[in-house]
Amino acid sequence: MIFCRFQTGRAVRWGRVSRGTVEELLPDPFGDSSPTGLVWPLKDVQLLAPCEPTKIIAIGLNYADHAREFGHKIPKEPLIFLKPASAVIGPDEPIRLPAASRQVEYEAELAVVIGRRARNVPLEGTKKYILGYTLMNDVTARDLQRSDGQWTRAKGFDTFAPLGPWIVSGISPEDLKIEAYVNGERRQSSRTSQLIFGVSRLVSHISQVMTLEPGDIISTGTPSGVGPLKRGDRVEIRVEKIGSLLNRVV
Amino acid sequence: MIFCRFQTGRAVRWGRVSRGTVEELLPDPFGDSSPTGLVWPLKDVQLLAPCEPTKIIAIGLNYADHAREFGHKIPKEPLIFLKPASAVIGPDEPIRLPAASRQVEYEAELAVVIGRRARNVPLEGTKKYILGYTLMNDVTARDLQRSDGQWTRAKGFDTFAPLGPWIVSGISPEDLKIEAYVNGERRQSSRTSQLIFGVSRLVSHISQVMTLEPGDIISTGTPSGVGPLKRGDRVEIRVEKIGSLLNRVV
Repeated sequence: MIFCRFQTGRAVRWGRVSRGTVEELLPDPFGDSSPTGLVWPLKDVQLLAPCEPTKIIAIGLNYADHAREFGHKIPKEPLIFLKPASAVIGPDEPIRLPAASRQVEYEAELAVVIGRRARNVPLEGTKKYILGYTLMNDVTARDLQRSDGQWTRAKGFDTFAPLGPWIVSGISPEDLKIEAYVNGERRQSSRTSQLIFGVSRLVSHISQVMTLEPGDIISTGTPSGVGPLKRGDRVEIRVEKIGSLLNRVV
Repeated sequence: MIFCRFQTGRAVRWGRVSRGTVEELLPDPFGDSSPTGLVWPLKDVQLLAPCEPTKIIAIGLNYADHAREFGHKIPKEPLIFLKPASAVIGPDEPIRLPAASRQVEYEAELAVVIGRRARNVPLEGTKKYILGYTLMNDVTARDLQRSDGQWTRAKGFDTFAPLGPWIVSGISPEDLKIEAYVNGERRQSSRTSQLIFGVSRLVSHISQVMTLEPGDIISTGTPSGVGPLKRGDRVEIRVEKIGSLLNRVV
């Protein structure tokens, strides 16, 4: 099942995507929802970020090759950090380069969408708390990440959390191809089987720290191959069985 | 003016505090609001965390004596980090010690409550974006703060952001006495005049990074004298002209 948030005129709606159409769902995909019968061609609607997280928990250094790329040791536990909800943008919305940084980079990530409130979830019980999967570009001002030490500013600018294009439920996240393209040229390519801490471990671990709410995002980390973005670039994140998230840089 | 959120029975309301009473306000203090005429004795209501932030931005090492206490240099710019909204508790709610830490500490802080959406605010124009001031206890698992490097987990556990008791508007934050007490014994004592980066600088700086929303919190940092909490402790934060925030530890 593919869930999306979309806009038609001024109305924001939840929907279900199939065969090139979007059918409106009410009230939302986090509980029992029903189609209203209203249907649009997918090409006629504007997809929005597919949820409105109360928090975005992201994971540092969760692919061994990326940890090596920055000369870090492999973490013994998931290394978590937060991105603010104010950074979220949807598909096709522009990433804005802030004046404070001279080195803004893309990071392709598989993102978990939480389906219901989760607290102290055991490792083997995480599945029912997951609504599905989407993509995040964990945009990062690499120069400020280095100079600040704490990553909050570097990863927290407005527009630094492109999210989408939709939420795919019912798939296994265990071994999906993940890629980043800049202007059509492939820059990152890996598989989620290379994650040091997999999805269940992340959901369980984070739920021991903080209560997760429906719509919250856990972004699972990025593989090697991160690199700079410049004005005018088109950056695309692709994950197998989910889709493609495209944003341009302004 | 003193604004509060409070509970009577199952209803959660906004109110205005004066002379031992709470008068209900509608719709909320972030825009034009009016008293409804309903009044309760202050002692008969349960005060809640005085707002529901979409994000809590906190500042590291913003009192020189506290930076020295940890052997850090004075930062050249405000060092920001995030606490999740899921960590917020109100006055009298218990701080829960997590199993993952053996060293949980209090940190007394003056907190700014944002009154309206703020983005790229110049230094001299911050005042109209501030609704008022409250207190935060920036509870921190010091051992995990050290071992993780990133501060998110150490400062992000549920119950690690006691907030309250209310929002005081119309005061100057420039030179207020700030204290922490554990079981009635004073442990921190300083003045907000000792802040390295003052309130206007923080609001302006952060608004260049991320859009601030009504109810968002900027917690301004803690002075020297932080120390451990153990089960059964009663920890109280006091700031002159604002009040006292008391929580016990379980």
